[in-house]
Amino acid sequence: MPKIVVLGAGINGISTALAIQESIPKCQVIKQRMNLSVCVSSYPDVQFQIFPVTVISDRFSPNTTSDVAAGLIEPYLCDDDVDRIIKWTRTTILRIQEYMAGGHPGAEEQSGYYLSSVKSIPKWLEVMKNVHILSEKEMKEVAKRPEHKFGFFYTTWYLEPTAYIKWETEQFLKNGGQFLQQKINKIDDVSKMGYDVIVNCTGLGSREMVGDKEVYPTRGQVLRVECPRVKHFLIDDEYYALLNENTITLGGTQDRNQWNTTINPILSQKIFEENCRNIPSLRSARILSAHVDLRPTRGTVRLEAEPNGKVIHNYGHGGSGITLHWGCAMECVNLVKKMMLEEKKNSKI
Amino acid sequence: MPKIVVLGAGINGISTALAIQESIPKCQVIKQRMNLSVCVSSYPDVQFQIFPVTVISDRFSPNTTSDVAAGLIEPYLCDDDVDRIIKWTRTTILRIQEYMAGGHPGAEEQSGYYLSSVKSIPKWLEVMKNVHILSEKEMKEVAKRPEHKFGFFYTTWYLEPTAYIKWETEQFLKNGGQFLQQKINKIDDVSKMGYDVIVNCTGLGSREMVGDKEVYPTRGQVLRVECPRVKHFLIDDEYYALLNENTITLGGTQDRNQWNTTINPILSQKIFEENCRNIPSLRSARILSAHVDLRPTRGTVRLEAEPNGKVIHNYGHGGSGITLHWGCAMECVNLVKKMMLEEKKNSKI
Repeated sequence: MPKIVVLGAGINGISTALAIQESIPKCQVIKQRMNLSVCVSSYPDVQFQIFPVTVISDRFSPNTTSDVAAGLIEPYLCDDDVDRIIKWTRTTILRIQEYMAGGHPGAEEQSGYYLSSVKSIPKWLEVMKNVHILSEKEMKEVAKRPEHKFGFFYTTWYLEPTAYIKWETEQFLKNGGQFLQQKINKIDDVSKMGYDVIVNCTGLGSREMVGDKEVYPTRGQVLRVECPRVKHFLIDDEYYALLNENTITLGGTQDRNQWNTTINPILSQKIFEENCRNIPSLRSARILSAHVDLRPTRGTVRLEAEPNGKVIHNYGHGGSGITLHWGCAMECVNLVKKMMLEEKKNSKI
Repeated sequence: MPKIVVLGAGINGISTALAIQESIPKCQVIKQRMNLSVCVSSYPDVQFQIFPVTVISDRFSPNTTSDVAAGLIEPYLCDDDVDRIIKWTRTTILRIQEYMAGGHPGAEEQSGYYLSSVKSIPKWLEVMKNVHILSEKEMKEVAKRPEHKFGFFYTTWYLEPTAYIKWETEQFLKNGGQFLQQKINKIDDVSKMGYDVIVNCTGLGSREMVGDKEVYPTRGQVLRVECPRVKHFLIDDEYYALLNENTITLGGTQDRNQWNTTINPILSQKIFEENCRNIPSLRSARILSAHVDLRPTRGTVRLEAEPNGKVIHNYGHGGSGITLHWGCAMECVNLVKKMMLEEKKNSKI
């Protein structure tokens, strides 16, 4: 049994580690040991095959990039192939529905408006519920700016990253997973630590760690406000107000190649004012906090195994880290399985 | 200028009194006096024509039947002519939109599901927004019981009665309106108090006060819970979870001809459990309070002037008091104007 390590503890790192445990039973140390206690005599060699999955990261929740996200399920700032995006989003939605059915916090359906200056229906709308394209008459009622020319209403989900990662972390630990807080500078350093399968979910960190200059930051500054009066999200070409369990996340900025993570108070004020223009009831909101983080943007998500190597990459989700997380995690699992099979073949040779 | 009195201080009483002030300028004492200060010499007789509108009631907000309502804008427990209902609802919606535009609390759009055991599309759906009839596949996802066979999704509004009546009361007082706390046993007693136009908005009280045995109570018991996770309402043939600004109102009962206003704790438990079955996330809700009140039900709303008299009736709104309030108030205003005109004619003769 190979030793598996996941690098990065954002939603994609933790989810990939958990997906490996859930899909490859040998990776679940606790459950396996429990089984062994009753059948160890029949399978005496199994006991030596198990090994805990390890997650290595320098930052953990609530201090990851994922924690700053509003957790709206909707592709954003990700130019990957649309069919791939939709497939991953669908898998994530099924996971969220299972999570909700378990009664866990931080996830529910939410509905709202998407207003645009150009008439364009995104293909991802096919995964949404209760879709309604607004008529000209309806647009007049909803529009708050000249650039609000076209719009639609739909239902999606919110998945609060911090609450969800907390739950995932609990599951990961229950399954015998291990955490290691450490900054990894070069992926070769991990290889030297004795791991056989390395899954890289370091997001923007991959720029230095594996030298991928295609991944770059898109700076995002958001506000968290409390305004229980508002029951619908609203997104336009520049601004967004997205519902969470107790708060509303107001955005936002899309500053490409900006590395500055200091909060700009003038920008915070502008984000608030512009969102109030879109949703007048927000004027009564209590402003709680401002946040900045850097979305790991890349033309396409890098989700592949290095040829003839032991490294699998899963990074570059842009502003869609929450939306794509379970779809990408499950695809990673397939790559891990394939790699384990190859390794098994090679070790027999 | 006749002396106008409105009986009853639920949403229909206060709204009718305010609508009279807003639509018949002579009824606004303060504004009229301000005008007089600059033009009193030109119209010396005007000063004696004005008279404040009075509201008489034994119960005031937050202790009226209206205060127990969830404030969902949707016809309910009212068998009146559907076109009349829709007309009044539309007028109310326009009023709510104006109220929202003013930034006042307790009103916003809300969306949700209506699930039914029979395939039937209510005509009032034409006043709702973002309507989407659920497909069989969509129903499978939403349905939580065998009787959830047919459903639709739509957007309507909530108007929290207590917050709204507070605002209306402020407007009414600003316009020089007066309150009198008193129980009226017979409408003739009011006539003897020197009022020329009497608008009766006493709801269920009309059963004794004007001897209308067509109006009867439909007992409603509800819970108020706190559950910010949930962003959609859900109504089925028996239960409902309706969003308010900070709370969710869970119902409900429709016990016709029951006068008992004592809270039944076993029923409260059942209302909570059945709503949790419909919306599993409600399981995490904090239960705040239980309430009972008696909806003033009648085959049709009584909205008419007594022939050759000085009494106008506006009562019997069933479970639609909030939904119909401004439409009915405006129709009352027309009856008041007509009555004033008749009186003027008669006084000339």
